[in-house]
Amino acid sequence: MSVRAGAADTRIERDTFGEIAVPSWAYYGAQTARSLINFNIGRDADRMPVIRGLAYVKKAAATVNGQHGLDPAVQSAICSAADEVISGQLDRHFPLVVWQTGSGTQTNMNMNEVLSNRAIELLGGQIGSKTPVHPNDHVNMGQSSNDVFPTAMHVSVAMEAAGRLLPSLKRLRDALAAKADEFQGVVKLGRTHLQDATPLTVGQEFGAFVHQLDCDLRRIDASLVDVHQLAIGGTAVGTGLNSWPGFGEDVAAALARLTGLPFRSAPNKFEALASHDALVELSGSLNTTACSLTKLANDFRLLGSGPRCGLGELTLPENEPGSSIMPGKVNPTQCEALSMVACQVMGNHVAVTIGGSQGHLQLNVYKPLIVRNVLHSMTLLADASVSFADRCVSGTQVNADRVAELMSQSLMLVTALNPHIGYDKAAAIAKHAHANGLSLRQAALDLGLLSGDDFDRWVRPENMLGPA
Amino acid sequence: MSVRAGAADTRIERDTFGEIAVPSWAYYGAQTARSLINFNIGRDADRMPVIRGLAYVKKAAATVNGQHGLDPAVQSAICSAADEVISGQLDRHFPLVVWQTGSGTQTNMNMNEVLSNRAIELLGGQIGSKTPVHPNDHVNMGQSSNDVFPTAMHVSVAMEAAGRLLPSLKRLRDALAAKADEFQGVVKLGRTHLQDATPLTVGQEFGAFVHQLDCDLRRIDASLVDVHQLAIGGTAVGTGLNSWPGFGEDVAAALARLTGLPFRSAPNKFEALASHDALVELSGSLNTTACSLTKLANDFRLLGSGPRCGLGELTLPENEPGSSIMPGKVNPTQCEALSMVACQVMGNHVAVTIGGSQGHLQLNVYKPLIVRNVLHSMTLLADASVSFADRCVSGTQVNADRVAELMSQSLMLVTALNPHIGYDKAAAIAKHAHANGLSLRQAALDLGLLSGDDFDRWVRPENMLGPA
Amino acid sequence: MSVRAGAADTRIERDTFGEIAVPSWAYYGAQTARSLINFNIGRDADRMPVIRGLAYVKKAAATVNGQHGLDPAVQSAICSAADEVISGQLDRHFPLVVWQTGSGTQTNMNMNEVLSNRAIELLGGQIGSKTPVHPNDHVNMGQSSNDVFPTAMHVSVAMEAAGRLLPSLKRLRDALAAKADEFQGVVKLGRTHLQDATPLTVGQEFGAFVHQLDCDLRRIDASLVDVHQLAIGGTAVGTGLNSWPGFGEDVAAALARLTGLPFRSAPNKFEALASHDALVELSGSLNTTACSLTKLANDFRLLGSGPRCGLGELTLPENEPGSSIMPGKVNPTQCEALSMVACQVMGNHVAVTIGGSQGHLQLNVYKPLIVRNVLHSMTLLADASVSFADRCVSGTQVNADRVAELMSQSLMLVTALNPHIGYDKAAAIAKHAHANGLSLRQAALDLGLLSGDDFDRWVRPENMLGPA
Amino acid sequence: MSVRAGAADTRIERDTFGEIAVPSWAYYGAQTARSLINFNIGRDADRMPVIRGLAYVKKAAATVNGQHGLDPAVQSAICSAADEVISGQLDRHFPLVVWQTGSGTQTNMNMNEVLSNRAIELLGGQIGSKTPVHPNDHVNMGQSSNDVFPTAMHVSVAMEAAGRLLPSLKRLRDALAAKADEFQGVVKLGRTHLQDATPLTVGQEFGAFVHQLDCDLRRIDASLVDVHQLAIGGTAVGTGLNSWPGFGEDVAAALARLTGLPFRSAPNKFEALASHDALVELSGSLNTTACSLTKLANDFRLLGSGPRCGLGELTLPENEPGSSIMPGKVNPTQCEALSMVACQVMGNHVAVTIGGSQGHLQLNVYKPLIVRNVLHSMTLLADASVSFADRCVSGTQVNADRVAELMSQSLMLVTALNPHIGYDKAAAIAKHAHANGLSLRQAALDLGLLSGDDFDRWVRPENMLGPA
Repeated sequence: MSVRAGAADTRIERDTFGEIAVPSWAYYGAQTARSLINFNIGRDADRMPVIRGLAYVKKAAATVNGQHGLDPAVQSAICSAADEVISGQLDRHFPLVVWQTGSGTQTNMNMNEVLSNRAIELLGGQIGSKTPVHPNDHVNMGQSSNDVFPTAMHVSVAMEAAGRLLPSLKRLRDALAAKADEFQGVVKLGRTHLQDATPLTVGQEFGAFVHQLDCDLRRIDASLVDVHQLAIGGTAVGTGLNSWPGFGEDVAAALARLTGLPFRSAPNKFEALASHDALVELSGSLNTTACSLTKLANDFRLLGSGPRCGLGELTLPENEPGSSIMPGKVNPTQCEALSMVACQVMGNHVAVTIGGSQGHLQLNVYKPLIVRNVLHSMTLLADASVSFADRCVSGTQVNADRVAELMSQSLMLVTALNPHIGYDKAAAIAKHAHANGLSLRQAALDLGLLSGDDFDRWVRPENMLGPA
Repeated sequence: MSVRAGAADTRIERDTFGEIAVPSWAYYGAQTARSLINFNIGRDADRMPVIRGLAYVKKAAATVNGQHGLDPAVQSAICSAADEVISGQLDRHFPLVVWQTGSGTQTNMNMNEVLSNRAIELLGGQIGSKTPVHPNDHVNMGQSSNDVFPTAMHVSVAMEAAGRLLPSLKRLRDALAAKADEFQGVVKLGRTHLQDATPLTVGQEFGAFVHQLDCDLRRIDASLVDVHQLAIGGTAVGTGLNSWPGFGEDVAAALARLTGLPFRSAPNKFEALASHDALVELSGSLNTTACSLTKLANDFRLLGSGPRCGLGELTLPENEPGSSIMPGKVNPTQCEALSMVACQVMGNHVAVTIGGSQGHLQLNVYKPLIVRNVLHSMTLLADASVSFADRCVSGTQVNADRVAELMSQSLMLVTALNPHIGYDKAAAIAKHAHANGLSLRQAALDLGLLSGDDFDRWVRPENMLGPA
Repeated sequence: MSVRAGAADTRIERDTFGEIAVPSWAYYGAQTARSLINFNIGRDADRMPVIRGLAYVKKAAATVNGQHGLDPAVQSAICSAADEVISGQLDRHFPLVVWQTGSGTQTNMNMNEVLSNRAIELLGGQIGSKTPVHPNDHVNMGQSSNDVFPTAMHVSVAMEAAGRLLPSLKRLRDALAAKADEFQGVVKLGRTHLQDATPLTVGQEFGAFVHQLDCDLRRIDASLVDVHQLAIGGTAVGTGLNSWPGFGEDVAAALARLTGLPFRSAPNKFEALASHDALVELSGSLNTTACSLTKLANDFRLLGSGPRCGLGELTLPENEPGSSIMPGKVNPTQCEALSMVACQVMGNHVAVTIGGSQGHLQLNVYKPLIVRNVLHSMTLLADASVSFADRCVSGTQVNADRVAELMSQSLMLVTALNPHIGYDKAAAIAKHAHANGLSLRQAALDLGLLSGDDFDRWVRPENMLGPA
Repeated sequence: MSVRAGAADTRIERDTFGEIAVPSWAYYGAQTARSLINFNIGRDADRMPVIRGLAYVKKAAATVNGQHGLDPAVQSAICSAADEVISGQLDRHFPLVVWQTGSGTQTNMNMNEVLSNRAIELLGGQIGSKTPVHPNDHVNMGQSSNDVFPTAMHVSVAMEAAGRLLPSLKRLRDALAAKADEFQGVVKLGRTHLQDATPLTVGQEFGAFVHQLDCDLRRIDASLVDVHQLAIGGTAVGTGLNSWPGFGEDVAAALARLTGLPFRSAPNKFEALASHDALVELSGSLNTTACSLTKLANDFRLLGSGPRCGLGELTLPENEPGSSIMPGKVNPTQCEALSMVACQVMGNHVAVTIGGSQGHLQLNVYKPLIVRNVLHSMTLLADASVSFADRCVSGTQVNADRVAELMSQSLMLVTALNPHIGYDKAAAIAKHAHANGLSLRQAALDLGLLSGDDFDRWVRPENMLGPA
């Protein structure tokens, strides 16, 4: 770490603890530098993920504060600086990790410092001087980490949902629906308990996946309702001390305008600081989605198993070399990535649950953990869904010969004879076929129980696809 | 187990596997007896829990079948037998455990056998004769284990929700709301990070619990929407083979009439057999509720800690002897039971999630596991909520003297001086008080920064309870 | 509940809270009766499971107390009463549930009351009189719930491990080992990613299961080391106040004698009361075992899938009727029960983990939750292992024709030609076979790349079973 | 992504799928480039973490292969290239993510490509030419992804354990032990159920933490035994086809020499590919450690709560500004980071468990998921332990006045009077004190039950710290 005093490429920043050197290039200040020293945990992998959402909150708050005494030039500079953060161009100024204060205070201060210093620079002032833009008095005006950070959590999650997760799941749903349509006429053997059962169409089989995803999309939408409610306005403990009536409502409205999402002020600020049930519930819906996707991935790899010695009903697209010596071997790699992602989402959900249950009194201090895991799950589900849609579902083909061959071998087609020759004779045919490795038709002829013509007329899988 | 052949107190039943002795008193038959032998797993604790719901399904199906050829006398006898199961009087005839076939087939057959034999008895026939009421042909008419069992899962869960869980959570919510009302005027110290913070009222603190439960009730309701959709009509693989158009709709309507719950036929039967996402999602809402209740239990035991050396703000009702030697020691036993229940719900949720993710092709075969855990979680949450409401919340008192004493000691009331003497002088007062163990008022007078009258006029916690 | 005052069939018991009626038949007293009223949670399913272990602890303590002033007649009567509890004949006198005080205090008092009253009866006294055997002064002598209950947890768990879990897992291991032996000469197609791969023997495949179970047995043994350490002697907070030096050691030694298990006094009593890491770790080993068993169950049902349209390599024993119309359909019901059990163990482990993490200061108050889940997991694993060994593994047969047929179809046997004709020509053969649906042999002859004799000499799966 | 064909700064690489452009600077080749396109999942956060361990495996294999025909110059170049990877200087050549093929094949190929191209460069050849160092024939000689990748998983995990996790936990353990020593003479009030209880010393309280960590260190060590066993030598399905006898043993020995860790060849290669029980078990030990650390963090924040209105027994070091207006407010930020880390470890454990349970037949294809989570948990536990040791434990002080004040107020000291004045009189004193808010001493004098001198002689907490 370069946060060392006295070097030529550093400047001195100060907070109530005293002075500390920060890199000259950095917009962040003393509290960020201190946190880098105090929390050297998981540095490489676990950068705090709510930066963009938090910048939106700060921009919205500055806009509202402009109507309550914040100098217009300062307001404008803060908004410009926030826009730069939103664009991603200041990413390296946000070096803090998830594993810090459980209220996210240090990331709030990191943002206050960066926006203040960048706004000072925009206004021609000297970085580190806290003039004319003070990180606390101006950037954090009317706010507390305790309400700002959970607001940024909700904003970040809602934006990831609207911008990435829901469209991605929709894309996968549509790819599956297109295949359900394409394969609607292909009759196949059903399987229950992994055992041969009565027939259905591949379209019906794929339609179940589509229905699962339709439900998941609806469930996630339902869980987002509470996520659109924002803690802002509650300040330190939920009372809104040092804020003013209407501040929370105004900031929520500003955020709704900035993002196009239906944010509104949370009806109970005490709950909004002290609990994260809304995110636990959303994580539960992500967990359900992970269950749906696990089934999808498993069914694809079961149906695509082979090429010769598995079920072999589906041919999955070959995206990369399998073994150079075994042509036709396609490893179901997209299925594997998707199902690993689903496991991770289930694990993340447990972390969210435990953290979400452990709030004490006026504050839940597992906020960074919770939002990290929810966002991680969302990103993984989104990316993996697109990948699976584009690189697996879209290129999947039914191996019609194999489907028909298996269909024709199945003993349970004998069910269709019940109305014609009775259960006992039908069962005798099936038993005879099974014991002697015969086709049902051959067994029926062997036993002299019906003619080949009758068999061909009565035993028709295509007539077994719905209620009589 | 008494299921042994040849004894004087047994009769012989048979299935396609041959003969087997069952106890003379038992209405169940061969398949149940066989399952008792095959699945001697967790016998004492894990009895299959959907019996009552399944009896409702059978009654509804018989009613519908009466309009499609089932003999009216047979129909009536099946319905009467089902009513006896619903009433609980035949409980001992359902000895099977959760750990059986993953489709619940054996429990479906257990029900078919019991209803058939009891209906035969009601009609004057001979038990075990399968005449005039056949377990498969009549009791299971138009059905398959694969659609009947998931239907019974949903019916059981929906009934437990409506009849027990939601009213119980509501009762706890109302008990908390009454206390929020009762304590609305009591100003207390807030705590964030478990550290002293700015004030709020006890009513505001309890109001957060009420809001959590209001949200949980709404979330559970939302998750029940899919649970009210029933698999019946899908038969073996979802196609409805051997059923007829409208059967599923009619049975769902009959179940709605019988139970008063908004059941309807599932729009996609393939999904309804192959996945249990609806129950995974509901389990997620139970998991969220468990998080709410964990916070509630923890806050109560923190605030009730003492009697002398803890926070001591709440006095919890004393329900049983603490130590006979330490009067005033009240162990927060209801908090402990509630938080243990919450842990169990979180664990059960993981079991539901894993089982829910592992459906293959046309059937999920973790059905008994899933419904066991969902029902277990619901029962525990319901019972523990009532217990906590009646035996803890209702009798909880605020220890007003202690609350006031802590409030008066708190250094953060100095915040109120900022507008009057400025931040620097206020901070000096606080530092002086902290360093010398003084009250803020004494510290202020020591430093000569304001008069006692001014202090008393400005430092008023009751003015710090909302935005200015 | 029959615990109502004034009825003819009740007697009055009293504790420091006053009088309460208990059923005349009951050996339990006031505190148990009070707990039945206070904790009406999960009554049907979740009876407290450590009764037998706790009776051993009381017997051991009485034995030791006999050397420290406890009257020999009283000691003897307590031991006799404890023996009756151990035998199970007093089960109905222990009606309390898991969801009570988190220290298990009420169950400790339940035991003290039952042993006291039964011992009084044995000595000719009057039940409820507390003379000559007082529940606290004599039965609980030198003890506190805080050390007695965790001791009973460890004793119960260790006994379940030694008496039931380890032998059951060993039985499953041995059944698999016998099959590995039986099938050691059967060469089959390997599968990775569920795709055709190079060959191995069925014996090698089963040998992997055996190795997993060998490791699991060793892991559980390793985790039991800390479970054999007992909290007794720590009394209320770990200091041993009101006990005497050597008491914990003596009771542990007595328990070792009584049970034949290597119990010893925990080296740090403070940890033994405040944490349950030892049981969390054991639960982790049960969780690992559940992973092993999941794979075992899944492999069996994959390999047994069919009968005609699946892999069909194994024929699992048919234990109950499948569909009467589909002879040969064997639902892998034992696999399903085993894998559901494994899910439950994974879920239970999460409950144990959360409860295990939430101890505060001198006491973890999730004791009943923790021991319930550990014991539940152990019982399920034990029962399901025996069931799977006896009702699935032992009767499983290899479908040799099917194995050979699949083996012969596999394209990857072409690997064996590399050393003889080079990679390029071998690949050409495989590609030609795949594209045209030919056997490798036919493809080789088609392309004129080698003779049939050479093919038959070189392409021999039985030579591909180990390093060259 | 810069992997686009035709640009001036790219070169063309090829695999059996054809040509693909890779960046000119990159040592990686076609298969890596293809994976970047196919698996655009979680790109920012989830880089594959086993690179260094895998490089050790390749170096060891090259060393062994040098004794079995690999050209010495090629061997040496591969080893040099591997050393560069180990040093971290080639990190940017490993851009692949966790969410790829479940066998880690693409990362194995990434390594083969990088080592091959870098070795070619070192030998003066042309990158991309596969001459004189072929990625498959030379770098992957005698290996398969299916054995190399799990070997790299174990090597990476074992190195992280030895190099980072165990020393870090030891450091925390030692910091706690030093404090246990420092505070051994400080007598304090004990608390059970968060309620006032009998006394112990702060040293005893801290000693319990030390014991927990001692056990955790031992448990992790025990779980590492199986992690030191390596899959190498099993090749594609465990048989070792295309390898030679002794290869696995030799590579394990070479790895032991290179790393100083006790690696050896796994006794059952089939199990080593098809299951990851060894890592599930280790993850279980990490999970137990997370429980220990959760209790530690919670106890510190409870005991440090205040400054005036909490327990206030410990003064935690102030590492960053609390509120500038509330001097003395120290947020327990290290406790919060540590407990969030613990939640993450518990969640990761569930992901490992599910992935670990889902192996099919000859291969578990959740390998990247499993190793990612195990390593993530290890890194977080290691970093957070060091942070907590250095920035919290070491600077923690006992607030002796507060401890003494609480001690003196406690009613349960009355226990000490029992032997002198009897239980009834002692209880009367305690009740009188509680009812009237008096000290025990004052209550005793009020009631005239003993003299002040007797009280002072008999009621001495320092005599209540062990068995009599």
